Amino acid sequence: MSNIQDYMLRVGAQARAASRDMARAATSVKNATLHHLADLIEQATPTLKQANAQEVANAVTKGMDATFIDRLTLSDKAIATMIAGLRQVAELSDPIGQMSDFKPLPSGINVGQMRVPLGVIGIIYESRPNVTIDAAALCIKSGNATILRGGSEALHSNQALAELVQQALNHAGLPANAVQVINTTDRAAVAELITMTRFVDVIIPRGGKSLIERLLKDARVPMIKHLDGICHTYVDAFADLGKAIKVCDNAKTQRYAPCNTMETLLVHAQIAAEFLPAMCVVYQSKGVELRVDAQSRALLEQTGIPNLVDATENDWSTEYLAPILSIKIVASLDEAIEHINHYGSAHTDAIITEHYSHAQRFLREVDSSSVMVNASTRFADGFEYGLGAEIGISNDKLHARGPVGLNGLTSLKYVVFGDGNIRV
Amino acid sequence: MSNIQDYMLRVGAQARAASRDMARAATSVKNATLHHLADLIEQATPTLKQANAQEVANAVTKGMDATFIDRLTLSDKAIATMIAGLRQVAELSDPIGQMSDFKPLPSGINVGQMRVPLGVIGIIYESRPNVTIDAAALCIKSGNATILRGGSEALHSNQALAELVQQALNHAGLPANAVQVINTTDRAAVAELITMTRFVDVIIPRGGKSLIERLLKDARVPMIKHLDGICHTYVDAFADLGKAIKVCDNAKTQRYAPCNTMETLLVHAQIAAEFLPAMCVVYQSKGVELRVDAQSRALLEQTGIPNLVDATENDWSTEYLAPILSIKIVASLDEAIEHINHYGSAHTDAIITEHYSHAQRFLREVDSSSVMVNASTRFADGFEYGLGAEIGISNDKLHARGPVGLNGLTSLKYVVFGDGNIRV
Repeated sequence: MSNIQDYMLRVGAQARAASRDMARAATSVKNATLHHLADLIEQATPTLKQANAQEVANAVTKGMDATFIDRLTLSDKAIATMIAGLRQVAELSDPIGQMSDFKPLPSGINVGQMRVPLGVIGIIYESRPNVTIDAAALCIKSGNATILRGGSEALHSNQALAELVQQALNHAGLPANAVQVINTTDRAAVAELITMTRFVDVIIPRGGKSLIERLLKDARVPMIKHLDGICHTYVDAFADLGKAIKVCDNAKTQRYAPCNTMETLLVHAQIAAEFLPAMCVVYQSKGVELRVDAQSRALLEQTGIPNLVDATENDWSTEYLAPILSIKIVASLDEAIEHINHYGSAHTDAIITEHYSHAQRFLREVDSSSVMVNASTRFADGFEYGLGAEIGISNDKLHARGPVGLNGLTSLKYVVFGDGNIRV
Repeated sequence: MSNIQDYMLRVGAQARAASRDMARAATSVKNATLHHLADLIEQATPTLKQANAQEVANAVTKGMDATFIDRLTLSDKAIATMIAGLRQVAELSDPIGQMSDFKPLPSGINVGQMRVPLGVIGIIYESRPNVTIDAAALCIKSGNATILRGGSEALHSNQALAELVQQALNHAGLPANAVQVINTTDRAAVAELITMTRFVDVIIPRGGKSLIERLLKDARVPMIKHLDGICHTYVDAFADLGKAIKVCDNAKTQRYAPCNTMETLLVHAQIAAEFLPAMCVVYQSKGVELRVDAQSRALLEQTGIPNLVDATENDWSTEYLAPILSIKIVASLDEAIEHINHYGSAHTDAIITEHYSHAQRFLREVDSSSVMVNASTRFADGFEYGLGAEIGISNDKLHARGPVGLNGLTSLKYVVFGDGNIRV
């Protein structure tokens, strides 16, 4: 057995043991831990910034890009946001121990369900130290133990934060091993983490599609994940044009990088002449590159829209994460639904329509984790959905689907109240 | 590409295509299919019995045991049960399209969830033709397509039943490929089924622990499964002795083979002298072999209970599925909970007590898919829990946990109703 494997099995066993204590921790104790951690981070801000500054300097030397540096940096604002996040999670209602749906049955037993933690959650993320605190907060509140593996460039920042988390756990009388940050950047540690099913109940990978695909290939522990967000807005023949322009603008241009940003616009042929040129003027005024099908090109050229790029087959399944939009004219609601189910990534898709039955059919038949009527796909988010927090988004169908909040880190077990009942 | 792989990919693509139509099928159409299938089976009974009789004869020649033959045989009673089951599933309320938990949010959107089918469900089972109909019924009702792989000894019986299912689907205007029975007994077909993640959303294996462990090793498609049922009853110091004897008798002896039968009895030391000898007299009168720890042996020998077997470490983690029971005296509720969480299989565990806080702690801290107070573990069952049906039991934590009914074959997607809302 290698040293790394040995180390990971020890981390796993410690997490499993800690998860038992976390599962029965009182709400008040978990909340006190979060508030105390917020205090500790506040007090340790100078030390944290110092540890982080060295890592930021190293990353700059290595030539990492601005986005990378931005995410790595523990600025005053980033630290304030972590602290506010901790206090916010403390305010959320505790899902653990919630009981629901009790029904008395003819045999005399009364059956319902109780919400319980998943157990041990492995989280794999990039060099973003704030995720260490966000993830720890959600796992503590949901009564889980967690094993965190952040990006190698943030190792020391993460270790410094982890120390504070463990101090806060200790102070509250909870096991320090409830939150462990892996102390090596060796990839063998990840290989172990995603396969030690005895100690880890679920893996939540946060990062690019290629990272997640690589993990997926070798993982034996189930994952809560999404690979990409190829989100569509379909402007129906019965759309309100004012709403359509406003929503389609927001869905593409409010921010380009998030997974819930629209990547393909589908427009019904009947409304295209009226809607599409006006819409494209808005996009071009914001510097969005338009990749269009032949029918859209013909229409847009007629109305003098310049600089169109021909969309290729590949465009319909590309997540741009950039000021680029693919556009296609469709002949029917059916064609729109088929296009989305075929080329989409089951993330988030919206219809713009005033037609009751079209809205109903779209909601029912588009097979995505979020479906919307007359709203921007940008709303697909744990905070916007009122979950109070978000650890990720899932476009799988098992377990959590869509934005994953505290409940996504829990499971339901059956509870039976009897009075000496026997089965006959 | 081998012929089998080719065949399975075709089956998978057909199932995926059919799943789209099934997802939008009206409740009345799905119910009509189930009732029509019941009629078809009624009419075809002589033909079905003929196809089955040949397979039963082959199995007898091969020397299969009585249980195997019993499960393989399409007796009049077995056929009547299938028909009744179909009509019963038709009466269940349709989970698909149910919408719940809508909340208006500050941004103006209204967010809730809609219940949708999983998509394509692969079911792997033993040579039990009735499972073909039970599984088809649940998948049709829950709007899923399904690929069925039954045991090789029942191939022709299953094919005969599958033909009737496809007739019923056709008759109702649903795609015949919504229910496909794999037409080969080649194991390569199973290897393909459990890895073709593009076409199959979940696998439900039904069968022994060794089969499921083998599948688990190679599967890439997620599974809803349980490996074994090592169920406990803990008789607390504050148990009502009358209830304890009645419930512990039922939990062990009502039937020996089911996964929810008790395999280990834990007894608090304070009540052992009063409870255990009386309990063991009941067990021995029914021929149950008792495997006891040293403390139980000392106590039971004092009161003249004969024929005790010493329990070994191995006994605490053995699913007997037979008239054998392991017995251990524990010093506290904590020891009982620790024993169950350590040796159990997270299936079903019960406490017998009149002590309020002990009951609450047991429910909260025993990490099993069903936890019970003063009731027989034999109640852990979809029908007994009022689910109306059961396709299996899961002791995993992700997705469905405990008995899995129609809802376990579904997922929830988020639905957003807007009125032109944008994110700011």
